[in-house]
Amino acid sequence: MKFVSFTAQGRRSFGIAVTGGVHDLGARLGSVLPDLRTFLQAKALGATFDLSAATTVDYAPGEFGHEPVIPNPDKVLCVGHNYEEHRRETERDPTAHPSVFIRFADTLVGHEAPIVRPAVSHVLDYEGELAIVIGRPGWRVPQEAAMALVAGFTVCNEASVRDFQRHTIQFTPGKNFPGTCALGPALVTADEIDGLDHRAITTTLNGEVVQNATLGDMIFGIPEIIAYVTTFTRLAPGDVIATGTPGGVGFKRNPQLLMKPGDVCEVAVEDIGRLRNPIADEPGG
Amino acid sequence: MKFVSFTAQGRRSFGIAVTGGVHDLGARLGSVLPDLRTFLQAKALGATFDLSAATTVDYAPGEFGHEPVIPNPDKVLCVGHNYEEHRRETERDPTAHPSVFIRFADTLVGHEAPIVRPAVSHVLDYEGELAIVIGRPGWRVPQEAAMALVAGFTVCNEASVRDFQRHTIQFTPGKNFPGTCALGPALVTADEIDGLDHRAITTTLNGEVVQNATLGDMIFGIPEIIAYVTTFTRLAPGDVIATGTPGGVGFKRNPQLLMKPGDVCEVAVEDIGRLRNPIADEPGG
Repeated sequence: MKFVSFTAQGRRSFGIAVTGGVHDLGARLGSVLPDLRTFLQAKALGATFDLSAATTVDYAPGEFGHEPVIPNPDKVLCVGHNYEEHRRETERDPTAHPSVFIRFADTLVGHEAPIVRPAVSHVLDYEGELAIVIGRPGWRVPQEAAMALVAGFTVCNEASVRDFQRHTIQFTPGKNFPGTCALGPALVTADEIDGLDHRAITTTLNGEVVQNATLGDMIFGIPEIIAYVTTFTRLAPGDVIATGTPGGVGFKRNPQLLMKPGDVCEVAVEDIGRLRNPIADEPGG
Repeated sequence: MKFVSFTAQGRRSFGIAVTGGVHDLGARLGSVLPDLRTFLQAKALGATFDLSAATTVDYAPGEFGHEPVIPNPDKVLCVGHNYEEHRRETERDPTAHPSVFIRFADTLVGHEAPIVRPAVSHVLDYEGELAIVIGRPGWRVPQEAAMALVAGFTVCNEASVRDFQRHTIQFTPGKNFPGTCALGPALVTADEIDGLDHRAITTTLNGEVVQNATLGDMIFGIPEIIAYVTTFTRLAPGDVIATGTPGGVGFKRNPQLLMKPGDVCEVAVEDIGRLRNPIADEPGG
């Protein structure tokens, strides 16, 4: 099943991606479960939903706009330099543990929404990534039990403002400009995905392939990431973990390849989705 | 005025610290404004409250327990190595901009609540700090307008799990264990504080002074911090910024001085408050 968050007729909602559009779960459940995060929380608490008839199209393409798959996660954790080629190109030391930083939820945008180039910096770079959406609460979860926490997968363009990222050794500023992290189009539930390692992840900028790897190239796999993260923080339904970007980022190319207004960046993960975003200047910036 | 968040009779509330205890604003306003963050948001939207009669004691000491001053901030930002002595002892390079990292809200505990030593690491260190609570929304705020964003000040013990902090160059894991960041006892409104620079900040562990500086020793002052932070992220009422710790942390002493169960750590900032916390092992840890 593919869950989406969207806006239609000025109303934020969530639902299921079906043939021909979206089926609006929020219109039916929203008085109790206003968003996809709450829906996942209810499921984690034991609620079950018969969605066998949830196939009707409430909005066709063009009648709704995508929101970030989870518009309001409590925690967004990101893993840094988690592919060997990207670690080498950024000259980061190998580490025995995943490198973890945090994004605020207001950095997220949905599929087809503009990724925002800040007024104060034009050093905006793409980072195509697989993202995990958490479906069950987790604390001190061993690797072998980690996949049971995962509601499903989505695609992320964890766009980074490189000069601000390197103001100090903490990545926070370069990773927290509003509208710099695209997440979507859909949450593909884990039961639909039989193994991730062989799947391709590909980033294109204006149609040119700029990143290309397979998910199995990750240094720390998803079970290791979840096991490590839950040693220090509790995960809850709707939390998001971006798992790191492959080699090929624009900042480390010669000449540099940065994203600018009018560009279109797409990140595709095989069987998970194709996330497409135009780049736009900050409004008023 | 001194605002507090607290629990009494099993109910979370907020109010005013008055002579002889607390005056419960939540009991009066809570159906609309359930917590101090919402109260600050309402004020930022132009609501005014006549608190001239808000002097009666609803709960005396012993009848209530302190919560973190803001129990549910949307954003908690922390500035690293912002005192020269601490920068030198941690061998960090000088930087042209503040070093900023993020804590999740579930790391916060109130005055007198235990700071939690994790089961997975005993390398728990104190960090006495001044913290700012934001009172008005802010984005791209110039230094000269920055203090108008500040609702007031409080005290922070930004306790850090040093081995996890140094797993990679990102501080996230060492700064995000649950129950490691004490915040309180009270939000002292900015109108009560006429200048900060000459005020002493002192940390004691079991009565022994371990950190002692004046707030004017900060490398980046509050206006610079707010101006920098609002270049990359929007601030909102109830957001918290911890402004960094002076020299004298336990991890860099020889021999090391770490916090352990049974210890009591106090952080005092002149005219802002004295934050006292016992140390306890993680429940079940």
